[in-house]
Amino acid sequence: MCELLAVNADRPMDAGKYLSLLMPRGGKTGPHADGWGVAYFEGRAARVFKDASPASESRYLAILARARLKSTAVVAHIRKANPATVGRAAANTHPFEREWSGRSWVFAHNGKLPGIHDLPDPPSSRFRPLGQTDSELAFCRLMNTMAQEIDCGGNVSPLRVKRALVPVVEALSRLGEFNFILSNGEFTLVHAHTNLHVLEKSFPAPPHGKFVTVLATAPLTNEDWRAISPGSIRVYRGGRPTG
Amino acid sequence: MCELLAVNADRPMDAGKYLSLLMPRGGKTGPHADGWGVAYFEGRAARVFKDASPASESRYLAILARARLKSTAVVAHIRKANPATVGRAAANTHPFEREWSGRSWVFAHNGKLPGIHDLPDPPSSRFRPLGQTDSELAFCRLMNTMAQEIDCGGNVSPLRVKRALVPVVEALSRLGEFNFILSNGEFTLVHAHTNLHVLEKSFPAPPHGKFVTVLATAPLTNEDWRAISPGSIRVYRGGRPTG
Repeated sequence: MCELLAVNADRPMDAGKYLSLLMPRGGKTGPHADGWGVAYFEGRAARVFKDASPASESRYLAILARARLKSTAVVAHIRKANPATVGRAAANTHPFEREWSGRSWVFAHNGKLPGIHDLPDPPSSRFRPLGQTDSELAFCRLMNTMAQEIDCGGNVSPLRVKRALVPVVEALSRLGEFNFILSNGEFTLVHAHTNLHVLEKSFPAPPHGKFVTVLATAPLTNEDWRAISPGSIRVYRGGRPTG
Repeated sequence: MCELLAVNADRPMDAGKYLSLLMPRGGKTGPHADGWGVAYFEGRAARVFKDASPASESRYLAILARARLKSTAVVAHIRKANPATVGRAAANTHPFEREWSGRSWVFAHNGKLPGIHDLPDPPSSRFRPLGQTDSELAFCRLMNTMAQEIDCGGNVSPLRVKRALVPVVEALSRLGEFNFILSNGEFTLVHAHTNLHVLEKSFPAPPHGKFVTVLATAPLTNEDWRAISPGSIRVYRGGRPTG
């Protein structure tokens, strides 16, 4: 099991505060000590930082959290490996990233999908795992579905992505637990299978109006976090829900 | 223009020495101050570190060079942007990476390819650029050619890759200058279009026999570096030339 964090905002913001609150749960106040990763979007490209060390002890992550990197879309993850199967390694650490449609797509997962390695091969296997996790294999299935069903010539709409992914998300969820965050920098799609919380903040006074959505496995602050209804897929763009 | 560095070895080694010698050329003893990047393979997956800051001033790169990361395949690059066209940004910084055939493929380029943006679209555009450089576009053309011409179901042989790439490498070279390094962790393919040097080291005494090949735009030490014949494509595997 693992913990997820994502930020989606209408203008670049520093997610360091939430990252700093997640860190200690990676080995100190929480058991997720088998690696961490953070993806920051800069336009269409994600910068992905990850390491197989415990987040709570990582000087590298501490520097990143204080680096005041600003982005409209951030996805982070702290990992607790399933010791019986897949060990600590950068390649097994989330978020995973692939390029498709001229954009980075990044993915982080909370849960377990036993049996996913035994599923029949999908019709397309353009995207393949680099590591051994059930999570990266699930990500590749999502990416393969999108690449097969959506014309990537133009802009890829979040509604189109959601519609294409619903059947595969439902099928994979039947294997176990499949809370995830998927972002292409422009929008962030989440599946709250069993457990995901959201904090929606807005500062509507113009000209400084600002919208920010923060998503996390467990609330990280005393702010007004709400549990997302189990089983639902939500999409956020410009710091606000779009569907 | 830019400078390239790669290491290919038959067992994991620390490339920090060569990285430290490249660093000052990124803004101090050399003009390549517009970013740096290093990719280290861990099995089939590359870990890519990059930043748009000058290599010579980068604390981040200094820490990496001293981190004793061991790998059999490393690709590094320091960038001098073409100021008229494409500015400093992580997405414009080499090495670029894409997953294909269940492996990371990383690419770094020295030279300029004016006119590449005006070429007609290739038959496949499965891989698309995330940034604005001529270099990343050339990399996508190489990847699209491989994905179209090679069955990625089994292991991808270096000979097969070389044969598939020769025509596109020749076509792109006619646009300008196209010295590059391409690695999938198992082998490292280089094109010495106008300028690339190689250092082949071997320590043949068993049981500690070790083979290491270092490639760089300019020799970095007083060792026995040789210029690779202009116009040639070479492949290195297990620290030794294979073709």
